[in-house]
Amino acid sequence: MTSENQALLERFQTGKKLGLARAISLVENERPGFEAFLHSVLETPRFAKRLGLTGPPGAGKSSLVAALTRAYRDQSEEVAVVAVDPTSPYSGGALLGDRIRMNDLATDPGVFIRSMATRGSLGGLATTTKEVLDLMDAFGFHRVLVETVGVGQTELEITGAADTVVVILVPESGDAIQAMKAGLMEIADIFVVNKADRPGADRLVKDLRLALHLREGKALKDVPAHHGVDLKRMGVPEEEAEPDKGGSGQPRWEIPVLQTVAQTGEGVRELLDAVADHRSFLELSGGLAARRKARAAGRVREVVERELRRVSWAHAGVQEILEKGVVEIGAGRETPYSLAADIIAELMGPGTK
Amino acid sequence: MTSENQALLERFQTGKKLGLARAISLVENERPGFEAFLHSVLETPRFAKRLGLTGPPGAGKSSLVAALTRAYRDQSEEVAVVAVDPTSPYSGGALLGDRIRMNDLATDPGVFIRSMATRGSLGGLATTTKEVLDLMDAFGFHRVLVETVGVGQTELEITGAADTVVVILVPESGDAIQAMKAGLMEIADIFVVNKADRPGADRLVKDLRLALHLREGKALKDVPAHHGVDLKRMGVPEEEAEPDKGGSGQPRWEIPVLQTVAQTGEGVRELLDAVADHRSFLELSGGLAARRKARAAGRVREVVERELRRVSWAHAGVQEILEKGVVEIGAGRETPYSLAADIIAELMGPGTK
Repeated sequence: MTSENQALLERFQTGKKLGLARAISLVENERPGFEAFLHSVLETPRFAKRLGLTGPPGAGKSSLVAALTRAYRDQSEEVAVVAVDPTSPYSGGALLGDRIRMNDLATDPGVFIRSMATRGSLGGLATTTKEVLDLMDAFGFHRVLVETVGVGQTELEITGAADTVVVILVPESGDAIQAMKAGLMEIADIFVVNKADRPGADRLVKDLRLALHLREGKALKDVPAHHGVDLKRMGVPEEEAEPDKGGSGQPRWEIPVLQTVAQTGEGVRELLDAVADHRSFLELSGGLAARRKARAAGRVREVVERELRRVSWAHAGVQEILEKGVVEIGAGRETPYSLAADIIAELMGPGTK
Repeated sequence: MTSENQALLERFQTGKKLGLARAISLVENERPGFEAFLHSVLETPRFAKRLGLTGPPGAGKSSLVAALTRAYRDQSEEVAVVAVDPTSPYSGGALLGDRIRMNDLATDPGVFIRSMATRGSLGGLATTTKEVLDLMDAFGFHRVLVETVGVGQTELEITGAADTVVVILVPESGDAIQAMKAGLMEIADIFVVNKADRPGADRLVKDLRLALHLREGKALKDVPAHHGVDLKRMGVPEEEAEPDKGGSGQPRWEIPVLQTVAQTGEGVRELLDAVADHRSFLELSGGLAARRKARAAGRVREVVERELRRVSWAHAGVQEILEKGVVEIGAGRETPYSLAADIIAELMGPGTK
């Protein structure tokens, strides 16, 4: 580690906020030594309670995040908030509005807020975004709240970054059938119908409950799918992977459907309780360990793939094959597939396929 | 190759539309043998003229694509159209509206239309989407038109899939400064201000021209950046990589700013001419060869990375390291970074880093 990163590590580990901010920049920009830095801070694991909140644009996610943050502050917990915000290439600003609104909290030393643009990618949480969450975890916050706009893979990937996932809907965001189709039943630990004072809210709550009830008859919540990581392939025993599968006296989690009006604070207390209940459930059932294991496995995969890319394209032999090969492709004597096979063989030895 | 894929290859190569449709499914779903299939069809390279159209939601891309398709059909050219369409997880439908509207063309045997959902990912053109474009190219269409909604990386990646890129703006989509900030000057070969009968259109045209003019004084259009591929690193000589850099009597391309009203057909003729002019420029300047080379290199990289992922996670030794390692991470004896280093060493031999 460079002496500069070493100094940063010291500031980070002694709890200096400026150290955290600089560490985030180091990681976000993938500057030299960022992985070694992450390795060092993660050697002493700490475990923040991680809460993910996702939902369509305009669902009031930021207001709910602000309300939850205030409530946790009232309990003297230190809170880190990350708002993942896709940006529009046309306006230069947030694509879908709904930015974090918590100015009153920005001056509270017990709150650390970071808005992260996905820099044009809406395809999910970037690996570095997840690594920033790990930094906040390692820094020692009691709570890490991550808010993502649900526009695609993002809301699926949030399950790989949070212990408890709250899916926030509003009457305008579609009906329960659509939520089911979108796979939201698979990712939600808690459903919230926000703006519950609007027409259609009661109906949405009723329909969501019905959909959840019907679904429970068929298949219970499947933790492996939940994290986008196949725990079975990883060798995690099935009973550990699916702690909420009933029948064995194991505790089960029934996904609650809550109503809130974030603006007035209505229902926020109940949401806090549901989050705490889910936490207890995770701890009792062994689900927390399973989720952390899946999260670690997912992170390892991403880090390996990033490293494979880096090593492969810096490889002198590969460069040479690529340079000559594109000429051959142009001449119709190779295709990208025959050339790719040559490169794989160069990297991993012959007969890899 | 399986006998099934072999039979499909035959149908494809004898120009059966059903063969194309099935080949697309094979590739889109990455079914067994899809890469071998692509290799076979690309062994006989054909070169469709590829036109990419991108712009913000509501810019009227689909109407322009339809108008262009009709014009090419009038010249007896066979046209394939791919509309890349991000889907919303909440509504189940198109996220940003603006679907392709060309019902009258759907029954024309000289037109092949394919709407491809990005399946939740807005992060750009998926590798398989680009491979579908290659299929259409190999099938023998004269023109391949690809339409993408500009919401992020998509409009940057379109340059890796098309020879000529048209960026479509409307008065409502923001001003020239924003277009500049968004990097649209770098990807556009042609600017179109559509809905030119609306207030603000003239102003946008004027500002775009001014911005392009000012920009030209500083730096000319940079082909390597254009394709997201570093041609220099690939060893493509600089004069080949940047054919439009002036000063040497080389032809230069001045990005035109056109006005259209797609609904009435106003300006479509001029757009066709500009596309043809850009084609001539590319052929004369050597830019076409450079773009194809960059495209091939980009495809090779993607195929290699996909294959690396596949091989790595199927590797028995890696599975074992991962399974044991996640337990160690949980116990605080490893981090994802130390474990990733072990896996890289297992895959590529010790001392890879």
